[in-house]
Amino acid sequence: MTRFVLTTYDWVPEMPRGFVRDIRIRWALEEAGLPYRVESTPFAERGAEHLAHQPFAQVPWLTDGDISIFESGAILLHLGECSDVLMPIDPKDRAEVVNWLFAALNSVEMASLPWWLLNVWPNAKEGSVWPQFDGFFKGRLGRMEPVLTEQEWLAGGFSVADILMADVLRLPDRLGGLEGYPACKAYVARAVARPAFQKAHADQMAHFAAEDERRK
Amino acid sequence: MTRFVLTTYDWVPEMPRGFVRDIRIRWALEEAGLPYRVESTPFAERGAEHLAHQPFAQVPWLTDGDISIFESGAILLHLGECSDVLMPIDPKDRAEVVNWLFAALNSVEMASLPWWLLNVWPNAKEGSVWPQFDGFFKGRLGRMEPVLTEQEWLAGGFSVADILMADVLRLPDRLGGLEGYPACKAYVARAVARPAFQKAHADQMAHFAAEDERRK
Repeated sequence: MTRFVLTTYDWVPEMPRGFVRDIRIRWALEEAGLPYRVESTPFAERGAEHLAHQPFAQVPWLTDGDISIFESGAILLHLGECSDVLMPIDPKDRAEVVNWLFAALNSVEMASLPWWLLNVWPNAKEGSVWPQFDGFFKGRLGRMEPVLTEQEWLAGGFSVADILMADVLRLPDRLGGLEGYPACKAYVARAVARPAFQKAHADQMAHFAAEDERRK
Repeated sequence: MTRFVLTTYDWVPEMPRGFVRDIRIRWALEEAGLPYRVESTPFAERGAEHLAHQPFAQVPWLTDGDISIFESGAILLHLGECSDVLMPIDPKDRAEVVNWLFAALNSVEMASLPWWLLNVWPNAKEGSVWPQFDGFFKGRLGRMEPVLTEQEWLAGGFSVADILMADVLRLPDRLGGLEGYPACKAYVARAVARPAFQKAHADQMAHFAAEDERRK
């Protein structure tokens, strides 16, 4: 029996492909060489079983035996604890990884997500709040830039914190949001060049493409 | 020597008082009965020493010996690991607390913060994106409502996840954002009625008031 079971949607539209959050988990599992299989839950219908695993009706979730984990940050923390490739054991080093794991979500994605929404919602950038949300995100990038100028990875060696931060920054990078922040841009490029990311990305694309085929 | 040292601003304007994020940490330390002292960093000037502890130039941070932690979620996780009052030891129960700890930040605050910003930025609700951000936040409350209708606390007994979720929901609640979600509203009321919250809140208010006095 495979220890880890990752559940994602059976299908999504073209636009989010390559960016669905299961990629964070695939990437970590590939980096650590942990055994896993991927299952699907319907994108179109999110019923009681889905909600029992993921109360916000989103994906992914991961099961490890009788433990079910539903936030990508929580899953990465759990996988970090299952593998010293993803998170160091020394308490001080570990604390640094955990700092940056939360920072990726609550300091950076907190600002990058509204920025991204305003970029994809029709005409949203024409409104009066665009400069404020743009400034909010750029303020955070301005803080990341010196950190990533000095360090190859966020907390010593590559860790789950880098998986999360690089994946958070990939989305605005796709829309040119990292222009003017060369260290942030180089960091994302360095992270996605890793074979484990490449494998995770190809696997996610193939997963959704297989469902396209099945429906033909 | 006191084990835990919590650092917050020396002073903040009236509006954020009672809501500065050090309250999350004070609350947890009070719930657990852990020994701590509070130190101040200048609100007006955020220099190299501040950035060495908190790269986004915000507060709070917590030191525990030679470990320095700078995201409120990371600090709560650390304190949870220092006290079985705040987080259960059983791996399955612990995973549930960690799920909700991340959910408070990345599923709920991710939607409540833009909602709140649009409420406090001048004329921001008149723009075309208000209905979309309002819908984003209300969508998340709609998912929290059945969870909090069925459960007194998020993960069995009261835990660090409740400190974080209740504090996240307090901010929109202040502006009427929980109207129509009675279970969410009752949950916040239940949480802030706890003596540890009351102590943490009074201490934060007194901390900033003392600086007002000093400056007179």
